[in-house]
Amino acid sequence: MAFASKNDSLTLHTDLYQINMMYTYFKMGLHEKNAVFECYFRNMPFDSGYAVFAGLEHIVSYLEQLKFDESDLEFLRQNENYDEDFIDYLRHFQFKCSVNSVVEGEIVFNNEPLLQVEGPLAQCQLIETAILNFVNFQTLVATKASRIKSAAEGDIVLEFGTRRAQEADAAIWGARAAYIAGFDATSNVRAGKLFDIPISGTHAHALVQTYQNDYEAFMAYAQTHHDCVFLVDTYNTLRSGVPSAIRVAKEMGDKINFQGVRIDSGDMAYISKKVRQQLDEAGFYDAKIFASNDLDEKTILNLKMQGAKIDAWGVGTKLITAFDQPALGAVYKIVSIEDQNGNMRDTLKLSSNAEKVSTPGKKQVWRITNNLKHEKSEGDWISVYDENPEKFNSLYMFHPKYTYINKIVEDFKARPLLQPIYESGQLVYTQPDIRQIREYAKQSLAALWEEYKRDLNPQEYPVDLSEKLYNHKMDLINQLREENNSKAMK
Amino acid sequence: MAFASKNDSLTLHTDLYQINMMYTYFKMGLHEKNAVFECYFRNMPFDSGYAVFAGLEHIVSYLEQLKFDESDLEFLRQNENYDEDFIDYLRHFQFKCSVNSVVEGEIVFNNEPLLQVEGPLAQCQLIETAILNFVNFQTLVATKASRIKSAAEGDIVLEFGTRRAQEADAAIWGARAAYIAGFDATSNVRAGKLFDIPISGTHAHALVQTYQNDYEAFMAYAQTHHDCVFLVDTYNTLRSGVPSAIRVAKEMGDKINFQGVRIDSGDMAYISKKVRQQLDEAGFYDAKIFASNDLDEKTILNLKMQGAKIDAWGVGTKLITAFDQPALGAVYKIVSIEDQNGNMRDTLKLSSNAEKVSTPGKKQVWRITNNLKHEKSEGDWISVYDENPEKFNSLYMFHPKYTYINKIVEDFKARPLLQPIYESGQLVYTQPDIRQIREYAKQSLAALWEEYKRDLNPQEYPVDLSEKLYNHKMDLINQLREENNSKAMK
Repeated sequence: MAFASKNDSLTLHTDLYQINMMYTYFKMGLHEKNAVFECYFRNMPFDSGYAVFAGLEHIVSYLEQLKFDESDLEFLRQNENYDEDFIDYLRHFQFKCSVNSVVEGEIVFNNEPLLQVEGPLAQCQLIETAILNFVNFQTLVATKASRIKSAAEGDIVLEFGTRRAQEADAAIWGARAAYIAGFDATSNVRAGKLFDIPISGTHAHALVQTYQNDYEAFMAYAQTHHDCVFLVDTYNTLRSGVPSAIRVAKEMGDKINFQGVRIDSGDMAYISKKVRQQLDEAGFYDAKIFASNDLDEKTILNLKMQGAKIDAWGVGTKLITAFDQPALGAVYKIVSIEDQNGNMRDTLKLSSNAEKVSTPGKKQVWRITNNLKHEKSEGDWISVYDENPEKFNSLYMFHPKYTYINKIVEDFKARPLLQPIYESGQLVYTQPDIRQIREYAKQSLAALWEEYKRDLNPQEYPVDLSEKLYNHKMDLINQLREENNSKAMK
Repeated sequence: MAFASKNDSLTLHTDLYQINMMYTYFKMGLHEKNAVFECYFRNMPFDSGYAVFAGLEHIVSYLEQLKFDESDLEFLRQNENYDEDFIDYLRHFQFKCSVNSVVEGEIVFNNEPLLQVEGPLAQCQLIETAILNFVNFQTLVATKASRIKSAAEGDIVLEFGTRRAQEADAAIWGARAAYIAGFDATSNVRAGKLFDIPISGTHAHALVQTYQNDYEAFMAYAQTHHDCVFLVDTYNTLRSGVPSAIRVAKEMGDKINFQGVRIDSGDMAYISKKVRQQLDEAGFYDAKIFASNDLDEKTILNLKMQGAKIDAWGVGTKLITAFDQPALGAVYKIVSIEDQNGNMRDTLKLSSNAEKVSTPGKKQVWRITNNLKHEKSEGDWISVYDENPEKFNSLYMFHPKYTYINKIVEDFKARPLLQPIYESGQLVYTQPDIRQIREYAKQSLAALWEEYKRDLNPQEYPVDLSEKLYNHKMDLINQLREENNSKAMK
């Protein structure tokens, strides 16, 4: 195949306009100017009250491999009209940026910086596309997975989505994001191997169809596997599937661990109750009922409300594609740039869409918790990077759009969310073990009041700007509008 | 990073239950039994009247690399309780199946086999997950892209979705699927390099923010690039962006190719008309207006209805995630299996969900066109594999659910859609050049009546079963229900 024989890496995994801008910066002598870019999303996905950050591991592995090889340079040379000095600059490209980021598993919200890149302007630009590609998808799936795990109220939840995932990377990185956010295992063997995630799966309808008979198929499986979950809906769940599973479990006795049965079609509420009855009557009180059929947090909540007797949930399509909102919409915006005199000048993007106006300058996000009353979060406080809220005795927190919504917090603790990942191109962060990340996500979620975690109509979590940052933003908006209107009119 | 240091290939890119079934087949001596599996989807995506098949190139490259290395075997050994003879069988695994498939760019419909695998049962099982993963996503995006290209009525459409794609593979394979289905270029440089797709892109808001000024930014771009499309909505489209673009175009004159301006926010219908007026008044009648901001076929049709003056469409999120239906739902079902006497026995899956009942046996799909009256398709006719419709003088076509909907076609031509790709593990198909695939998709779509191509409420295209196949299915359903009920009751 033509494509398979090509040298491939993620270095060119970017939009052409990034490289075209790099070219302009290079030719105009701006490419080494220091710049700060920040990544954030504007709206909560799924109308969720919170999101779970993921994507950092892929970003680090991408940055570690960033290098233009000769086949990349040749492709650019043939397609675009770049001078050879630029090709040579790319040939010697070495990543030198500093990166601060929220860690994986952190609970995050809209309109706060999740990841911050500072370094040579041209370098910051190149890496925008891949960073967004990874953060957007993985944060989306981690968030969806966390919501599903919550709806399942401690039941086992399994990620079964590979066949419906949007190509191969989505399957494995989605499996990882789901595990971070609380899923118990994935069906994807490769994800298990690459990321050290528990894997799970027994058999499909094809096994039963091969034997053309539930009983013989289950018996064959039981003779070759110790742990058995039988899929009972190939022909008729209640008349053939479950009775056959019970017969095999009785005949095999202690030779197998009869974990239960799986249902993949039909009216789950009704059938699961009948199946429970059949299992109980046969004395298999501990046998679990697994369900899988287009499930997500909404169907799980609904089935639980109807008293469905389901113990474990296999979730595929709706999770792995984030079906009800398949894109997060995170953006990556320049917030500060070195001017001709070597000073940093903060910048923002105005827009006809009010919500697209960005907040200028290099920032830090602080999670504010009340020391005395509880261990729960009071809100997030976005500051100018070198502000330290812990110097204040009390913190004035106000809504950045509706400033009359405000409160004063005393005796608080402030934890900075953006952590150093790279310093001048050097990786300074050690990625925790995936089980630590998963545990961190759990703790991070526990620090959130229940009101923000509700499936439907959650309270809006406060993400506020410091007074200094708010005033800075307002000043800059006014200044920019004036300058641009006058320049265009010349 | 832990994961980056692991040996990786797509061989383990499968669900664990596939390997667990392989183990049962192996231990029961069934793994070499001949089996036939077919891949199809049950419902049209986006309520579309047609779909565009894609995914074959990735499937072939996946099958070509299929091989368990020692790290794969070690992972399986540690996680599952397989006997060493099975591990050894995997170590010597060599793909031996035959594969027939619809070619990329073919117009396809629900409930017809798109891809057919015949060979050793255990091998057919292993490859299910990856095949579905690739076909589901790529066919979905190709279909969405074709609908968007139709809505744009011949305008240029550009794929800009990487940052919102569901991880890296979705970005590049989605760009390829979009190009096959009629898109003109992608922004993803890597996709351009790997698949030989035209790439496109000029600059982003960051360039303007770096200069803090539309005019200076455009001038810098114009001094370093010949082809110029200026993004005009960073500060104020009509007061600053477009006037600055015009000023640069006038000052640079013949030194640049001023292709036009891009708008990425605001009321597109209103603003595009005003921008057109400004460009025309300045004498730039040929300058094009590019639009990009959450576009898809619905918004494009709507903007055209409102008389928006947009010449080229940059489409991102809504295409690359297939936003309004992010999963196709194609399945892969066993349809025939060798019995103890070495005869093929056809099989189907019953289900409480009527639509999940499959059609048994190895099949062929024939596209029926009327020879005399026109070159348009009369419908698709699914037959038992060795039936040949061209032996009939006239063809009786009837709806497989509503059999009273029927017609008789005379003087017809029948073209088989499933083409040989692999014969007993050997690749026998030469993938056409991507431009040929794109042209094929165009011709294939042209053979479809307009009624099936409508965006809203298209006619249902006839996908019918031959009488022989229909009767075979009905007989088998009855037979299976009886057998299984009696066996379970023993």
